Amino acid sequence: MKDRIFYPLSSILLPMDLVKNKKLLMHVGPVDIYEEVLYAGLKNNVGFTSEEFVNAFQSSLKRVRYLFQADQTYQPFIIPGGGTSAMESVTSFLSRGDKVLVVTNGVFGDRWLNIFKKYPVEVDCLKADAGDYVGIESIREKVKQKHYKLITFTHVETSTGVRHPIKESVEEIRDYVDIIVVDGVSSVGAEEVKAKDWNVDIYLTASQKAIGAPPGLGLLVVSENAMKNLKGENIAGYYLDLNNWLPVMRGMEEGKSAYFSTLPVHTVFMLNEALKLVQDEGIENRIKRHEKVAGAIRAGIEGMGLNVVAKKPEAYSNTVTGVMLKKVKAQDVLAEIVKEGVELAPGVHPSLQGKYIRIGHMGWVTPNDAVVTISALERTLKRLGEDIKIGEGVKATQSYLS
Amino acid sequence: MKDRIFYPLSSILLPMDLVKNKKLLMHVGPVDIYEEVLYAGLKNNVGFTSEEFVNAFQSSLKRVRYLFQADQTYQPFIIPGGGTSAMESVTSFLSRGDKVLVVTNGVFGDRWLNIFKKYPVEVDCLKADAGDYVGIESIREKVKQKHYKLITFTHVETSTGVRHPIKESVEEIRDYVDIIVVDGVSSVGAEEVKAKDWNVDIYLTASQKAIGAPPGLGLLVVSENAMKNLKGENIAGYYLDLNNWLPVMRGMEEGKSAYFSTLPVHTVFMLNEALKLVQDEGIENRIKRHEKVAGAIRAGIEGMGLNVVAKKPEAYSNTVTGVMLKKVKAQDVLAEIVKEGVELAPGVHPSLQGKYIRIGHMGWVTPNDAVVTISALERTLKRLGEDIKIGEGVKATQSYLS
Amino acid sequence: MKDRIFYPLSSILLPMDLVKNKKLLMHVGPVDIYEEVLYAGLKNNVGFTSEEFVNAFQSSLKRVRYLFQADQTYQPFIIPGGGTSAMESVTSFLSRGDKVLVVTNGVFGDRWLNIFKKYPVEVDCLKADAGDYVGIESIREKVKQKHYKLITFTHVETSTGVRHPIKESVEEIRDYVDIIVVDGVSSVGAEEVKAKDWNVDIYLTASQKAIGAPPGLGLLVVSENAMKNLKGENIAGYYLDLNNWLPVMRGMEEGKSAYFSTLPVHTVFMLNEALKLVQDEGIENRIKRHEKVAGAIRAGIEGMGLNVVAKKPEAYSNTVTGVMLKKVKAQDVLAEIVKEGVELAPGVHPSLQGKYIRIGHMGWVTPNDAVVTISALERTLKRLGEDIKIGEGVKATQSYLS
Amino acid sequence: MKDRIFYPLSSILLPMDLVKNKKLLMHVGPVDIYEEVLYAGLKNNVGFTSEEFVNAFQSSLKRVRYLFQADQTYQPFIIPGGGTSAMESVTSFLSRGDKVLVVTNGVFGDRWLNIFKKYPVEVDCLKADAGDYVGIESIREKVKQKHYKLITFTHVETSTGVRHPIKESVEEIRDYVDIIVVDGVSSVGAEEVKAKDWNVDIYLTASQKAIGAPPGLGLLVVSENAMKNLKGENIAGYYLDLNNWLPVMRGMEEGKSAYFSTLPVHTVFMLNEALKLVQDEGIENRIKRHEKVAGAIRAGIEGMGLNVVAKKPEAYSNTVTGVMLKKVKAQDVLAEIVKEGVELAPGVHPSLQGKYIRIGHMGWVTPNDAVVTISALERTLKRLGEDIKIGEGVKATQSYLS
Repeated sequence: MKDRIFYPLSSILLPMDLVKNKKLLMHVGPVDIYEEVLYAGLKNNVGFTSEEFVNAFQSSLKRVRYLFQADQTYQPFIIPGGGTSAMESVTSFLSRGDKVLVVTNGVFGDRWLNIFKKYPVEVDCLKADAGDYVGIESIREKVKQKHYKLITFTHVETSTGVRHPIKESVEEIRDYVDIIVVDGVSSVGAEEVKAKDWNVDIYLTASQKAIGAPPGLGLLVVSENAMKNLKGENIAGYYLDLNNWLPVMRGMEEGKSAYFSTLPVHTVFMLNEALKLVQDEGIENRIKRHEKVAGAIRAGIEGMGLNVVAKKPEAYSNTVTGVMLKKVKAQDVLAEIVKEGVELAPGVHPSLQGKYIRIGHMGWVTPNDAVVTISALERTLKRLGEDIKIGEGVKATQSYLS
Repeated sequence: MKDRIFYPLSSILLPMDLVKNKKLLMHVGPVDIYEEVLYAGLKNNVGFTSEEFVNAFQSSLKRVRYLFQADQTYQPFIIPGGGTSAMESVTSFLSRGDKVLVVTNGVFGDRWLNIFKKYPVEVDCLKADAGDYVGIESIREKVKQKHYKLITFTHVETSTGVRHPIKESVEEIRDYVDIIVVDGVSSVGAEEVKAKDWNVDIYLTASQKAIGAPPGLGLLVVSENAMKNLKGENIAGYYLDLNNWLPVMRGMEEGKSAYFSTLPVHTVFMLNEALKLVQDEGIENRIKRHEKVAGAIRAGIEGMGLNVVAKKPEAYSNTVTGVMLKKVKAQDVLAEIVKEGVELAPGVHPSLQGKYIRIGHMGWVTPNDAVVTISALERTLKRLGEDIKIGEGVKATQSYLS
Repeated sequence: MKDRIFYPLSSILLPMDLVKNKKLLMHVGPVDIYEEVLYAGLKNNVGFTSEEFVNAFQSSLKRVRYLFQADQTYQPFIIPGGGTSAMESVTSFLSRGDKVLVVTNGVFGDRWLNIFKKYPVEVDCLKADAGDYVGIESIREKVKQKHYKLITFTHVETSTGVRHPIKESVEEIRDYVDIIVVDGVSSVGAEEVKAKDWNVDIYLTASQKAIGAPPGLGLLVVSENAMKNLKGENIAGYYLDLNNWLPVMRGMEEGKSAYFSTLPVHTVFMLNEALKLVQDEGIENRIKRHEKVAGAIRAGIEGMGLNVVAKKPEAYSNTVTGVMLKKVKAQDVLAEIVKEGVELAPGVHPSLQGKYIRIGHMGWVTPNDAVVTISALERTLKRLGEDIKIGEGVKATQSYLS
Repeated sequence: MKDRIFYPLSSILLPMDLVKNKKLLMHVGPVDIYEEVLYAGLKNNVGFTSEEFVNAFQSSLKRVRYLFQADQTYQPFIIPGGGTSAMESVTSFLSRGDKVLVVTNGVFGDRWLNIFKKYPVEVDCLKADAGDYVGIESIREKVKQKHYKLITFTHVETSTGVRHPIKESVEEIRDYVDIIVVDGVSSVGAEEVKAKDWNVDIYLTASQKAIGAPPGLGLLVVSENAMKNLKGENIAGYYLDLNNWLPVMRGMEEGKSAYFSTLPVHTVFMLNEALKLVQDEGIENRIKRHEKVAGAIRAGIEGMGLNVVAKKPEAYSNTVTGVMLKKVKAQDVLAEIVKEGVELAPGVHPSLQGKYIRIGHMGWVTPNDAVVTISALERTLKRLGEDIKIGEGVKATQSYLS
């Protein structure tokens, strides 16, 4: 018998393995995964040229369009990696010396800066304070001053849970920028996203976020307009040059085996199942569900007397809630709440380091998950000595739900 | 795309499949199953004579002794079926005309009567009212009046959640009865059970209850004393005659392949994993955990203003709680609470038909499961118009836990 | 790192775990299980009253009729246990003193005798030598001499692989016996079986044989004629009295939750998936496939210069082939061939003890499985010093297949 | 019931799903995956900061060193993607204008050229004919003429199955080149690989090849010498800049959660299990096993009268065998052999297009897999009218094995 570590779940002791098996993962991705999605990956003999794989990839491509509310004029891409590789692949649309504007509300907005730093492009930047987003006014002003080939937005800033008003921003700047890119990593599948209607050129996300599949794939849809800029003589590297992936996407969509570099076959099967479930639920229902759970969680946070990181209510997101702590340390809360059967994410915004935690609520979350999260958080904070009202959080969540 | 039925989870709509996938099963067995247990059954090429199977069966037998707190003087049996087949297999110890006393506190106590009715034995019976148990006094009196070959008890009566004081009862009657049998179907793995110390001859249970494995197997431990009565010329049928299974148990325990009738090989692998986890947790810890969760659930029930079926607090069980309803119908509650992501069990005691529901809390239950159950029950009862105080149940549960 | 035992697979050494993971199970049940069947059992929260379970049971019942080629006039039963419990459940149709005739071609025909020995019925018996079957003439003669309430046949005698001519036998005796029972344990799903057309009253099998699901369930179809004999005052015990199961079967077929004793819920999900695959393949195709594989295996056996146990070619079965050994011991062959990645079954007929092995070829077997089996058997027998022609077996199998 | 496509498996018809479920995948990666490896990925609630994940990543890093026979002086990297992303990540060691020599024996050698074409380096190249490898003499000559910062080799050229003599080549050039890189994608885990002893700076592979895990990860070990060249101001992009991954590898190896970009968490769990099994088998045993299976396959190919693509016997690889066809078309063979239950890979070398097929034999292959492959290939080729001797291939394989 191997040694077991025992955990206090409230005042009783549970073996770590049991706590972990039943653990609710309220994280920012990977999230709790629907079992049917996991089981879809149990394939022990599918080659990358097999009919099974080609079929799964083909249907995933079609479903990706639905997910982003794009239409046939958009080219979908499913490439290895995740959010960051999908972001970097937009270099496929750029040439040496191109002008780029980055609108950043936090760590993942800043990531665009870090990417472009490695390439021969001219980058400008608009930054918001932690918990806030860059105002539309200042964006409009900036794009009027200089002609940018490409602008990047972050729909929901995963580091703070702040949602940027994409639709409104795009409306204001559409005429001034050639390629509008939106990082929808923490929004697609949980927030309203309408690539076509909003006239976004490149919308991207990753498999492990609100779609609820395992990590390993980046997803993009690219408008006809942007596709005209996809040329061989770009600044991209090799693996992330979408020119290399385009024939694969086109061949697969026609049901033909195609190869550039081996795709994560099993992850594709899981993604395909997740996308099927998204479609079965209906994207509007899915968004409403996320909204409800997010509301229930914020009600609980406020009920116990704590504040969220996002400053403006209109910027509350459906997927991530940052929770400001009063007296206790973030790392202690994270370590202790696992022992209550819930796993949360650390806060990562440099200016709030150690002062907040993040609750991810995306993928397959239900109201019951909100109840468990708030209940476990209350018990944990209480045990650590935080200044909260025990029982009031869970009661507020319950009231919100009924 | 197949048609989806949508469910109201509180006021939002979720596809039935999603609700079901995340559904918490607070039932009387099978219960929510630990994933490692399920995965242990994923064997696609193990024959009943294979080394893998013999090894798993061998270790299961040893672990069964620990589970019942029996020692080497007890013979363990793992036979196909479940609680009922295990119960009926005690006919292997009886001869035509033997005298049997059945102590029954409800439906599953009565099951002993139904079994013995099919056999040529003389049966007497002591019955309790619904929610109560037969007093020790009357049992002692009865066994003093007549010499019984065998007496049966039901440790926890699954139909009402009433626990019988086994230890105390056995102490009183040990000298008067040859074979003392305890149906531990809803107790073993969750209540204190000490086959050896309490001097019980035959203690039995089923795989799908507090051990938390799938249904398909009955488990028994039999004392040396009772084994002397295991003879060929008994009244048992063929499949449930333990004489046929004994060589299999003995062979397997020595690590040799042995055959009488094909055992449910995959279920044995799962049982073995579950028993391993029971041992890892430690039986005392496991009992405490069940006690805590049971307490949290009863706190919630009382918090929202409802009563439990068991009349006396000392008879509250760690595994099953019957909940009396005031105005609403049991079947409506069961149908509706599934839509809130929790599945409960119907009340089955004939004298309370339709007036109560049962919450099963056994196997791998945690405090968070208690919170979700009470929270979902509150929302469901409220929606159906039951006379309860919303938010008070979940708050009481939370207070109990912290 | 745990200790690994290494196995010689031909002249190289492989870790036991690897050999076992890739092991081909050519056994008599459980057999190699189609993965989708196993995965269908991965349900961690389905209660026995859940909609998911009721749906699965309902469709299984319907599929059982198709499997046996029975129609709506037949009542299907799915009960816990397996072949033996299904056999014993026919006591539900018998009364004290009834006359029964058992036609036995080996160990599993004799099992009927062992069962009836425990019940108050009058049993006669017709026995065949090992490798042979009881001639129709002698059966007809017997039933004309005495009026039997019930007669039992074994379609394929699993101990020797001998197939009995059921259709022809039933034709001859239909008018003389009330209830004709056929044990189709090693035939249903792989041999021609037509319950209705052949006018068989009770045809039964087990989940783990040619249907290719895990063990744990016995399946029966019962004719209208026989159902008239299903009364409460039978000689059956309690658990295997079909009177107790009938309301469950009827309720479930109407889509209503029904309970007598907890069914092995997970095994039912797996059975249901297996039955779906049987239907998808088409029972005629399935029989042809078994025939082909059986032929390829016998070709290989004869190619290497060995004989099969079944004496008459018309009695060769599609599911089990007994292989007579010349010099080597059966137990050595079985122990050694596992190390070549194939698991076979021991011979169990008492009069041929230790002199033969059995190859099971049922469920999801393919021609490639025949090739592997013959190839591994050749290598094993050669290594052990058996008098065979190496390479000739596998060549004969290959010729048979192309 | 959904429509089923039926396949001829020899002369019988099997439903496509059944053929596929039992299909043997003799491909170049992903290959047949050991079930325990797949099951290791069944984790539905592990976040990238979870203890479970950190532990798995930590042990994978350590096991990667063993796999490559590197020691503590080598830094292991496990990065998203696969072979190509691992190859491109070596740009992290290069500066603008560096001189690079590519030694290419086929398509995957040429891939290095395609990668470097996108970067500001000066590239020279030595090319071999299809089926051959570049001679050591010409390499030595080249590196003596010009000082190269980096040279790349392909250990086994996946497109032709040709093995390059790495040890001997490195010995000759070690003194002349700064960084020696070996693409071990189709060798690591199946061929002798000794990063340390052979003094290779960067050895890389992918998860889905001879390690037998699913695709999604690239693995590298980097020598101390090469690590000195890992600086921020390199020519690499962002996602594949090993500078960004280095703190993650270091943190994780110390057991601390670390983040750069979300890793494919589930694939890591599967990789870790595969690496554990590699270690359990022992790398020397694993190589011998691959050698044996490769030999058995080539014996079968030659037995039926066909030739392999690799021209020189010393260049035969343990992992991939190209098979030259005489009359039939490669695409027909591939399409038809699936119907016999085996999936092979297309030939992709441009100069032999359509004239050959590839058999992948890596990961968990056994001698029985060789038998099935040769047997199915014979039947397929015969059916298509290829000029082969039926039964001779499988006989030769069998003789080779015994």
